[in-house]
Amino acid sequence: MSEKEQSVNTFAHEVKLENNEVGVMALGGLGEIGKNTYAIQYQDEIVVIDAGIMFPEDDLLGVDYVIPDYTYLVQNIEKVKALVITHGHEDHIGAISYFLRAVNVPVYAPPFALALIKGKLEEHNLLKKTELHEIKPDSFLDFGKLSVEFFQTTHSIPDTVGVAVHTPKGTIVETGDFKFDLTPVTNQYPDMLKMAKIGREGVLLLMSDSTNAERPEFTKSEAWVQKSIERIFDRITKGRIIFATFASNLSRVKMAMDSAVRHGRKIAVFGRSMETAVNNGRDLGYLNISDEFLLEPSDLKNTPPDETLILSTGSQGEPMAALARIANGTHKQIKLQPNDTVVFSSNPIPGNTASVNKVINELEEGGANVIYGPLNNIHTSGHGGQEEQKIMLELMKPKFFMPIHGEYRMLKIHSGLAQSTGVPSDHIFIMDNGDVLALDGEHAHPAGHFSSEDIYVDGGGIGDVGNAVLHERQKLSQDGLVIVTATINMQTKEILSGPDLLSRGFVYMRESVDLINDGRRVAFGTIRKAMMSSNADEGSIRQAVIDELSHYLYKKTARKPIVIPVLIQVKSN
Amino acid sequence: MSEKEQSVNTFAHEVKLENNEVGVMALGGLGEIGKNTYAIQYQDEIVVIDAGIMFPEDDLLGVDYVIPDYTYLVQNIEKVKALVITHGHEDHIGAISYFLRAVNVPVYAPPFALALIKGKLEEHNLLKKTELHEIKPDSFLDFGKLSVEFFQTTHSIPDTVGVAVHTPKGTIVETGDFKFDLTPVTNQYPDMLKMAKIGREGVLLLMSDSTNAERPEFTKSEAWVQKSIERIFDRITKGRIIFATFASNLSRVKMAMDSAVRHGRKIAVFGRSMETAVNNGRDLGYLNISDEFLLEPSDLKNTPPDETLILSTGSQGEPMAALARIANGTHKQIKLQPNDTVVFSSNPIPGNTASVNKVINELEEGGANVIYGPLNNIHTSGHGGQEEQKIMLELMKPKFFMPIHGEYRMLKIHSGLAQSTGVPSDHIFIMDNGDVLALDGEHAHPAGHFSSEDIYVDGGGIGDVGNAVLHERQKLSQDGLVIVTATINMQTKEILSGPDLLSRGFVYMRESVDLINDGRRVAFGTIRKAMMSSNADEGSIRQAVIDELSHYLYKKTARKPIVIPVLIQVKSN
Repeated sequence: MSEKEQSVNTFAHEVKLENNEVGVMALGGLGEIGKNTYAIQYQDEIVVIDAGIMFPEDDLLGVDYVIPDYTYLVQNIEKVKALVITHGHEDHIGAISYFLRAVNVPVYAPPFALALIKGKLEEHNLLKKTELHEIKPDSFLDFGKLSVEFFQTTHSIPDTVGVAVHTPKGTIVETGDFKFDLTPVTNQYPDMLKMAKIGREGVLLLMSDSTNAERPEFTKSEAWVQKSIERIFDRITKGRIIFATFASNLSRVKMAMDSAVRHGRKIAVFGRSMETAVNNGRDLGYLNISDEFLLEPSDLKNTPPDETLILSTGSQGEPMAALARIANGTHKQIKLQPNDTVVFSSNPIPGNTASVNKVINELEEGGANVIYGPLNNIHTSGHGGQEEQKIMLELMKPKFFMPIHGEYRMLKIHSGLAQSTGVPSDHIFIMDNGDVLALDGEHAHPAGHFSSEDIYVDGGGIGDVGNAVLHERQKLSQDGLVIVTATINMQTKEILSGPDLLSRGFVYMRESVDLINDGRRVAFGTIRKAMMSSNADEGSIRQAVIDELSHYLYKKTARKPIVIPVLIQVKSN
Repeated sequence: MSEKEQSVNTFAHEVKLENNEVGVMALGGLGEIGKNTYAIQYQDEIVVIDAGIMFPEDDLLGVDYVIPDYTYLVQNIEKVKALVITHGHEDHIGAISYFLRAVNVPVYAPPFALALIKGKLEEHNLLKKTELHEIKPDSFLDFGKLSVEFFQTTHSIPDTVGVAVHTPKGTIVETGDFKFDLTPVTNQYPDMLKMAKIGREGVLLLMSDSTNAERPEFTKSEAWVQKSIERIFDRITKGRIIFATFASNLSRVKMAMDSAVRHGRKIAVFGRSMETAVNNGRDLGYLNISDEFLLEPSDLKNTPPDETLILSTGSQGEPMAALARIANGTHKQIKLQPNDTVVFSSNPIPGNTASVNKVINELEEGGANVIYGPLNNIHTSGHGGQEEQKIMLELMKPKFFMPIHGEYRMLKIHSGLAQSTGVPSDHIFIMDNGDVLALDGEHAHPAGHFSSEDIYVDGGGIGDVGNAVLHERQKLSQDGLVIVTATINMQTKEILSGPDLLSRGFVYMRESVDLINDGRRVAFGTIRKAMMSSNADEGSIRQAVIDELSHYLYKKTARKPIVIPVLIQVKSN
């Protein structure tokens, strides 16, 4: 029997998996930080791991976020057994509503992620339509041919797990996001014994987090941050402390709360995501803060500043978050006071540096003392550095390796680390989203590709904004537009009214009277000349107006607004 | 005589300088990195130091750069004796054409800056109209009451000087950009003896570079970078080396060239600004490279890869620069080859990180080996850290201190450093652009303010783009626009044609037929209803269309395109 005849799974876009092969693929997460969505397939069973979004780069004007193309899963919907979630960050759960609308399958998620997912599904009216299951690190899911177990890891959000998918051909481990924090301030330790057990039993393929592959270090523990935070509370005896961090970083929230309680400060919580995180954290038992230490916003004015901690969102300089509004004076309940100390327990994500600096400048100009930056030891990454990536490789001792969760250069460095721990280079696969890796237990090889284009979500629209629309937005954002209106009679070759010019985002019309008047003359001459042509039609007149007016405006202003002719044809009576 | 009567200089915007006072002010450079432009005034003499641009932040859509408002200088044009330039970076000379169009005064600049300035003035047809003077570190300029001397400093461009303006009330020192590089690879050492001489003679006010005030360190020397570059050339024996850095960083260019010559590599120069820098550097004697080591682009294909160095622009990920085009395969003369090594001898400026990472990823995906980042020791800053800022304070021992060249938080930290070296806090002035500081030799006090708004340059327009136009561009960039066209007869209350909808940057029209058709119906109903109103006029109909259609489109798409009604009125016959 030829290889071809043996094939049972021939999908669109030439994915070819043999009956004795496990397929491993990413719908998102390779060559990028974001939209993590991985799938393990064996015969008629698929398990999907995570359903993340990616935040758009600056040139995706107006795009709210980017999600994967789920077509491959939709085409194989009857095979998809589960969506398994590793933790509750947006790049792992943010697209879950879009995912479930495309592929409504049971969701398995650890408690903190599950609480956040419920909120999302409620907003999208999907809560009742979705089968949700809570998983614990010792959960075991059996789908028939595929089964899944978990191992606890440490990251910058509670309840983070790695996933081991057992297949008849061997075990595939997807680490999720991880660091080895051996002194976590939560009681959630990285379960190295379980990782070692899985490794000892044999790992066919390790898919491991590459985020910090550029850092030749062991990421510092949250306990190290805790000391710095405690020192700040020791030192700041006058005025309020305003503490900003990622809401989901409950370790950081817990440390700030604990230090506050020890120093006689009560806690007010601001920002929607921070309120949600604190509520979820208390419900799930990760924050043991009693009501007496919590302030309502309205209590704030009656509480002495040196007995106050304000927990706030906005550590990334987000312009609508609580902290930015405190900084620029538009927050309704919190006005800056002398002796306020603001702590940024965070590092700016690349791209946010300017926004964060703006908020810091504004806070300092407003008289606050601001504690920020790497020198203050108030932040550590949630991802392991090279040393931890090597530990994971050593614990799992995989036969094959696939670096995931990273841009290309990170994946490449991570590959080098794998080689340095003994994985042969031909057992390592740097793949793209949509690439399929086939494993039969002994060998691994690329087995085709499916479409994995970025899908843009803009407002209520999914995928209805693409490169042409974005290109128009780009042009509009640079130089605006000019609309030329005229009423014409094609039979008599007359211009009955206009042409009039109106613009948006181009120049101040009132201060550019000459430009506009001359532009009208150019348009008038162009329309008249174009109408006189023997084969004149609306299209040719429009094009002539676009060409001539664009040329004129560029000559006068060195700008290229989009020129839109609106020609109304009136017939002779 | 009252203080008021004594005043000789009462300018617009309430600047008040007494006859016995020196005025010190910034038109740009305070509270920002960019558009450095400082002025020292005594009675009827003003000396201006630098004429920089600022690159726009991301939200200034379509703006090419930002320049200061020169109105104060224009109003006092007969007093302005000179524009003195400290060095040739864009944030110090980039606005010189705009400056000279407003205030055509003699320009004094060191050789490397002067060469760059000549290029700019030629482009703007100003070369013949401008009086240009070359200065050396030992130049002395005498304007009558004010005189100017210079002291050599080290920075990331050749020929950088600090400026001492001697006034009858004391000496004002403006450091320009500086670090104390005690082992510069050029032969331009920081002239500490001259600084000390100026300090010993007495400095009334020190205005000092605050860029690296956040760094508690002594910035590393270029000699340290040189070792890393030499090691790279030692190690890379196969394939081409492509070396990217700021073109103006002639030290870096020189080091790469020297290493190339030592390792038997010939040098090809790519990118317009790199070509200019190399030409200027050779003309001025800073690059002693003989023709035999230089390659023409056409020689490249006949030169063995391991005998080739390509010097390139684009180290900041600029999309149109040579390196980005090499990376994405669109460079006409250079295609990536196996064994190519690309060196980024630079750090990304905040805001450029994503672009730089994109180029690195593309280069690595193309098979190149890329050397980048702080771990490779291939870059050092051109600005001194806190230790060097304190050395400058110690050498100058100023009576008063004004931190310049920095965002607010940097100015604030620099103030703290000044205090730590003994400057009393009430002798330190953190000022804004447009603030005037008055000094009579004994005392210093704020003396009013003049307008110092940012002026936006967009294409050929200066100041014709403001917040309203930018706000329109912002809206257009997010959701595009929808134009509604209809011909109406207000007398008969008829809609004669339309309404038709057309859009740009909103949705794909062809794939949104229902949305557009329903939108037309909404517009039709709205126009008809609005026309029926007893006091209907074109304005009220237009507003109704905007309101109703915006509401409809938001409900359907969660987007807010700009709605522009174009209503053509036709009269009854």
